[in-house]
Amino acid sequence: MLAKVGLLKAGELRAIVKGLERIDDDIAGGRFKFDIADEDIHLAIERRLIAMIGDPGRKLHTARSRNDQIALDMRLFLRDEIANVVALISELRATLIKLARRHLRTIIPGYTHLQRAQPVTLAHHILAYVEMLGRDRERFEQAAARTAVMPLGAGALAASTLPLDRRMVARTLGFKSITANSIDAVSDRDFVVDFISAAALTQVHLSRMCEEIILWTSAEFGFAALPDEFSTGSSMMPQKKNPDLLELIRGKTGRVVGDLVAMLTILKGLPLAYNSDLQEDKERVFDALDTLKPALDLLAKFWPMLRFDTKRMRAAAGGFALATDLAEYLVGRGIAFREAHEIVGAIVRETAEAGKTLEDLSGADLRRYSRAFEIDAVAILRAENSVARREVEGGPAPSMIKMRLKELGRG
Amino acid sequence: MLAKVGLLKAGELRAIVKGLERIDDDIAGGRFKFDIADEDIHLAIERRLIAMIGDPGRKLHTARSRNDQIALDMRLFLRDEIANVVALISELRATLIKLARRHLRTIIPGYTHLQRAQPVTLAHHILAYVEMLGRDRERFEQAAARTAVMPLGAGALAASTLPLDRRMVARTLGFKSITANSIDAVSDRDFVVDFISAAALTQVHLSRMCEEIILWTSAEFGFAALPDEFSTGSSMMPQKKNPDLLELIRGKTGRVVGDLVAMLTILKGLPLAYNSDLQEDKERVFDALDTLKPALDLLAKFWPMLRFDTKRMRAAAGGFALATDLAEYLVGRGIAFREAHEIVGAIVRETAEAGKTLEDLSGADLRRYSRAFEIDAVAILRAENSVARREVEGGPAPSMIKMRLKELGRG
Amino acid sequence: MLAKVGLLKAGELRAIVKGLERIDDDIAGGRFKFDIADEDIHLAIERRLIAMIGDPGRKLHTARSRNDQIALDMRLFLRDEIANVVALISELRATLIKLARRHLRTIIPGYTHLQRAQPVTLAHHILAYVEMLGRDRERFEQAAARTAVMPLGAGALAASTLPLDRRMVARTLGFKSITANSIDAVSDRDFVVDFISAAALTQVHLSRMCEEIILWTSAEFGFAALPDEFSTGSSMMPQKKNPDLLELIRGKTGRVVGDLVAMLTILKGLPLAYNSDLQEDKERVFDALDTLKPALDLLAKFWPMLRFDTKRMRAAAGGFALATDLAEYLVGRGIAFREAHEIVGAIVRETAEAGKTLEDLSGADLRRYSRAFEIDAVAILRAENSVARREVEGGPAPSMIKMRLKELGRG
Amino acid sequence: MLAKVGLLKAGELRAIVKGLERIDDDIAGGRFKFDIADEDIHLAIERRLIAMIGDPGRKLHTARSRNDQIALDMRLFLRDEIANVVALISELRATLIKLARRHLRTIIPGYTHLQRAQPVTLAHHILAYVEMLGRDRERFEQAAARTAVMPLGAGALAASTLPLDRRMVARTLGFKSITANSIDAVSDRDFVVDFISAAALTQVHLSRMCEEIILWTSAEFGFAALPDEFSTGSSMMPQKKNPDLLELIRGKTGRVVGDLVAMLTILKGLPLAYNSDLQEDKERVFDALDTLKPALDLLAKFWPMLRFDTKRMRAAAGGFALATDLAEYLVGRGIAFREAHEIVGAIVRETAEAGKTLEDLSGADLRRYSRAFEIDAVAILRAENSVARREVEGGPAPSMIKMRLKELGRG
Repeated sequence: MLAKVGLLKAGELRAIVKGLERIDDDIAGGRFKFDIADEDIHLAIERRLIAMIGDPGRKLHTARSRNDQIALDMRLFLRDEIANVVALISELRATLIKLARRHLRTIIPGYTHLQRAQPVTLAHHILAYVEMLGRDRERFEQAAARTAVMPLGAGALAASTLPLDRRMVARTLGFKSITANSIDAVSDRDFVVDFISAAALTQVHLSRMCEEIILWTSAEFGFAALPDEFSTGSSMMPQKKNPDLLELIRGKTGRVVGDLVAMLTILKGLPLAYNSDLQEDKERVFDALDTLKPALDLLAKFWPMLRFDTKRMRAAAGGFALATDLAEYLVGRGIAFREAHEIVGAIVRETAEAGKTLEDLSGADLRRYSRAFEIDAVAILRAENSVARREVEGGPAPSMIKMRLKELGRG
Repeated sequence: MLAKVGLLKAGELRAIVKGLERIDDDIAGGRFKFDIADEDIHLAIERRLIAMIGDPGRKLHTARSRNDQIALDMRLFLRDEIANVVALISELRATLIKLARRHLRTIIPGYTHLQRAQPVTLAHHILAYVEMLGRDRERFEQAAARTAVMPLGAGALAASTLPLDRRMVARTLGFKSITANSIDAVSDRDFVVDFISAAALTQVHLSRMCEEIILWTSAEFGFAALPDEFSTGSSMMPQKKNPDLLELIRGKTGRVVGDLVAMLTILKGLPLAYNSDLQEDKERVFDALDTLKPALDLLAKFWPMLRFDTKRMRAAAGGFALATDLAEYLVGRGIAFREAHEIVGAIVRETAEAGKTLEDLSGADLRRYSRAFEIDAVAILRAENSVARREVEGGPAPSMIKMRLKELGRG
Repeated sequence: MLAKVGLLKAGELRAIVKGLERIDDDIAGGRFKFDIADEDIHLAIERRLIAMIGDPGRKLHTARSRNDQIALDMRLFLRDEIANVVALISELRATLIKLARRHLRTIIPGYTHLQRAQPVTLAHHILAYVEMLGRDRERFEQAAARTAVMPLGAGALAASTLPLDRRMVARTLGFKSITANSIDAVSDRDFVVDFISAAALTQVHLSRMCEEIILWTSAEFGFAALPDEFSTGSSMMPQKKNPDLLELIRGKTGRVVGDLVAMLTILKGLPLAYNSDLQEDKERVFDALDTLKPALDLLAKFWPMLRFDTKRMRAAAGGFALATDLAEYLVGRGIAFREAHEIVGAIVRETAEAGKTLEDLSGADLRRYSRAFEIDAVAILRAENSVARREVEGGPAPSMIKMRLKELGRG
Repeated sequence: MLAKVGLLKAGELRAIVKGLERIDDDIAGGRFKFDIADEDIHLAIERRLIAMIGDPGRKLHTARSRNDQIALDMRLFLRDEIANVVALISELRATLIKLARRHLRTIIPGYTHLQRAQPVTLAHHILAYVEMLGRDRERFEQAAARTAVMPLGAGALAASTLPLDRRMVARTLGFKSITANSIDAVSDRDFVVDFISAAALTQVHLSRMCEEIILWTSAEFGFAALPDEFSTGSSMMPQKKNPDLLELIRGKTGRVVGDLVAMLTILKGLPLAYNSDLQEDKERVFDALDTLKPALDLLAKFWPMLRFDTKRMRAAAGGFALATDLAEYLVGRGIAFREAHEIVGAIVRETAEAGKTLEDLSGADLRRYSRAFEIDAVAILRAENSVARREVEGGPAPSMIKMRLKELGRG
């Protein structure tokens, strides 16, 4: 661009580009010597360039400030990295969707308050995570759109008196738009906050996922067994198999929330335009990325290796978790819900006191509580039937899940 | 909907609607008696309804759980409140834009590192906030879109066996879409995080704005005087005039960041589906709203009453802040930027040592440093000229600001 | 004090004291009319006093500023409230200690990574919380010591030219020391941070406690049953019994962490001395107190009503959780620990593959793995013996727990 | 200890100690090969030891778990590092105290709400920071006391059946006490929270300090000039001199607050005993240390090089900032404070309207407002006199500051 608007001659341009390519090679090859006296990467490269190509190198910094350059660098970096994160989210979603297809009819208790509530399917449960991750992806995409705005030309804060063509720079770098105010351009780190916000919430979602698998793989739940590849032993206790990976991902949630707090605290009360406080954005971004990316990647590898004990799941999903179905059966027979709730409450209480569970009841047993129970009522008292009957959009019935899986496609 | 799908008879529907309307009146009129035994608002209303209309009231809770109801209530509430916040942001933007139009040529020093850097205009400076607020508004709008998804029909977590028409409910309530997974529907508070995230960053922006006005109205800066309506005196010091409002808004930033941390901490490691931890979302939302809304509103009222001392601003904007212009002048004459930077560095150093400032220099003085300085160079050394020459898109030149103001319209 | 140093005459003093007492009564009785024009409580009282007693009232504010007054008020308030919190912690500790005495020999599995690790006793487990709460109490006591420093006399920030006797004021108010620097005295809110820090960590401890009881009362663990007084039902599912109280306390952790973040964010980058940002400390303190105090109080009431299923605990504590004991047995027989670990690893693996557990093994079975196993080895394979043998200070052996309980006394 | 209680033979002990010393050397010399298969440092060292010395190496892990070992390591590490931090705080305090001695009579305006309030001295202002740092040091010392508790012997969570002598281990390692509960010993990271809490508040104090110096070195305040060693230039603007160091320290406050949030979030809702989430404590501790230590160290070096412009400070401290003195003068003459406040309010208003300041007033001018003003009243209207008369303990009078400096000693 500098050449196009006449600030560089063709020969100068060629010399600079060639020089920068060599410096790029040197850095990649570990041959570039950094000197503390250079203050930062910008000046280090400029000095090296001048040493290599002489006078044209002195024109490198024309119409630029480190303030708009670093804004550009962060935006270029994050634009690419957000794309990587989006791809990793899609990968994890694809894995979960595949798994859901296989467990369309695998019964598992649904929980509220960590108490068994009603039977659902493993597919339905897993797809809840697919929904969360879908929102996460959308958030990252929106963050990416606010990131992909070209700040160069803002200079230190007041743009430049030189005849720059910012739109050409934007096109060349693949940005669709340019920043609209040069003061804002150098003091804005909202796109960093956008990214870390999205990362923090995604990591919170992963922490919920990990918590659940940790529960499932406990002896008490026993719904799944950890793959050897993703569990560790104990240095002291010979029998242990620990869900390290899941605990680490859950723990690292604190880290990303901390990164978000750091960024917001940094920005609080900062006058315009550029202040060096903003330098702190880099490590927070790197930290959030280095936490989130492997977490997404490893969970995508982990899920297919988790071995489910579908029998134990099924066994846990029956019994009193079917009480709501009984109540809804009565509603279908015209009994008011609150009354039905009370009738079934009595059935549950007395059945439990008798040391039995709902599946032990006969049609006659039920009719003692309400004449509205007919011969087909007993059929409800099987988790499979309960689930199949929940044919509301968004519900666990295999017919509904199939419909949703179709919409989701590969993820 | 319950009537349409046959779960309520027409008479029952009428009785329920009428009963609920009376309850609504009673609550609005302060006549509704809450009883701790009712546990919560849902059951309180249901019991009152039954007391009023008898049997049909027992059907109120058909195919609903408090879990999906509260999800709906929060979404309805936030959908409306986000619209209010968006309107307040637009109002503040409109105020700032109007002010910018009046100060298109008011010179003010632009700062980096709180050191005077280069002259800009007050319009340019104020529009930096308009950009921030524009991103804030977009963030709220995106949060609103993720909020406006209808969860009813999810039941406790497993939907219902009754033949519900969720899309009809969505249409009736003005939602465009419905939640796709009943487990996710009752355990999801992402839309709350979305809202508080957007609120926290907006409040951070306001803290930056307040910090600057506090600086401007200090004796040392003296760029503006506080309106009496928005300043307080001292109980002890007779001469004081304090920017209370601005300090409070700045301080309240911590509060909204705290609300965000609270929500993320609440969600961390929570297994599916509904857990009572989620109840904590309400007070965090109310707190964020009660902080942000008056802050936006009061700042919109405050700005037009701030009395600028444009002379002091102008006086502070000249001098060494014009050094970059000198360097860019030389670049325009073909001198490499790094060399120009060094030449002007010497001019600055020696002029300062002589107890003068750049505006004191004559053309001859400049030519002693470089033959490239011509007769027109001295003209640069006026802040007005400096600003007018910065005609890069996004720059402070009045021509550029006018263009941007046109794009922005009313805001 | 003002009278003693001659700034008030005896009659003026009497009039002021009497007037303030009447105002106190009026406020307590809800008769005091607040007027927005009074700006705050300080000026409201002064104006009312002047209206009541005339001229002497105009001397009320002598040598005071709202800046040092509010610092004093917060310190008086927190001094008392911290004492209340300390008492509540002691109450909860006393409850837990009493419970531990009753469960000295109740076997429960100890967990690491939520995997059964080694048997411990319920007493031992509960006393882990007593240790945490002991540290919490110490932290509050240290916060109280930093709070109980008398700031009055600091004025707005620069003390006073009047001949004040600050030490007399301190004695009268029950403070042991006075603030050493008047600028610090009005800008310091460290004691607030101290308090909220201690509250946040205590609440985190309570969240760990609640998480565990939620696990214990799940169907899967079944180690305890919720008391009816502290559980809620479901509006939809007739069989549910939910640990609402515990979930709410766990969820409210986010709230107190948020309060802490708010305070630190408020203070960040604030120049000396007083700034109105500091006003935000009050609601953060109130919020933390209103969260923590009932949580401590309710848990002290909750624990004694929790009904343990000691049989299920015992059943879960045996089996492979005894593997470490076997290894340590071998170490006692001179076998190197790492080798012992490997031998027992093989026993565990092969026993599990045979569908058995360690308690099923005979002495002969063990000797097939190592000649070092003698006749007494089988005795280890009972959880009671395992626990009793762990007679290291701090360990779970009833002998050790008794010793610790003696040290703890009432708590 | 293992040898003393008979678990190691003398020869085995010698071999192990010698082996570990060689490994220590190898690690220090960069010759130790880490292998991912070793899982962590504990097992890497054990395996290397076994490779080196054979069988005795297999006894290394006797009666230990990585769970109690890592608790010990963190406590040893933090015990030492907190001592380092305490030393750095003392160093910074000593620097500030020395500076205060030199500026006992240097007048500077005291601010509230960033508005000039009353004159104080630079010594008085600087000593406000000494008070803050004194509280910080106390907090670290209290954290150190809770850190220096010996956890070894807790094993994985349930102590050991082997006859360990934990008190001997504590003595050997220089700890005064041992952990009282083995479950708590491995799940407790409170000492980490204690440390990071103290670090966060200290860093907040440094942010306030930096904010003030940034203000002082702005062109508008002009109270001090940055030393060249601690300021940076601009890559674009030839005249700039930026307070990078101070901005970075201020910005890094967000980082340490983020570390604190991370730790609290990690611990929230974690069941006992050890969970791998706790591994995250290390990087948070390192990050807080690596931020705080250089900040303290660099500020101790920075302050003595800051060049004060005592004339500008003095000039800013007079004028209307003396209003409170006038009011207190009247109080000394028997006029009620509120009346005095009003009289001086009128003086201020009318003097300002006349384009003058208080120092311009004669005795006669004052007497026009109140007969209570006598000949000596004009003397008050010099900042030096104002300050000298504020002889309340904790006040800015040089006599008071001298007293405080004596108490503080070297710091």
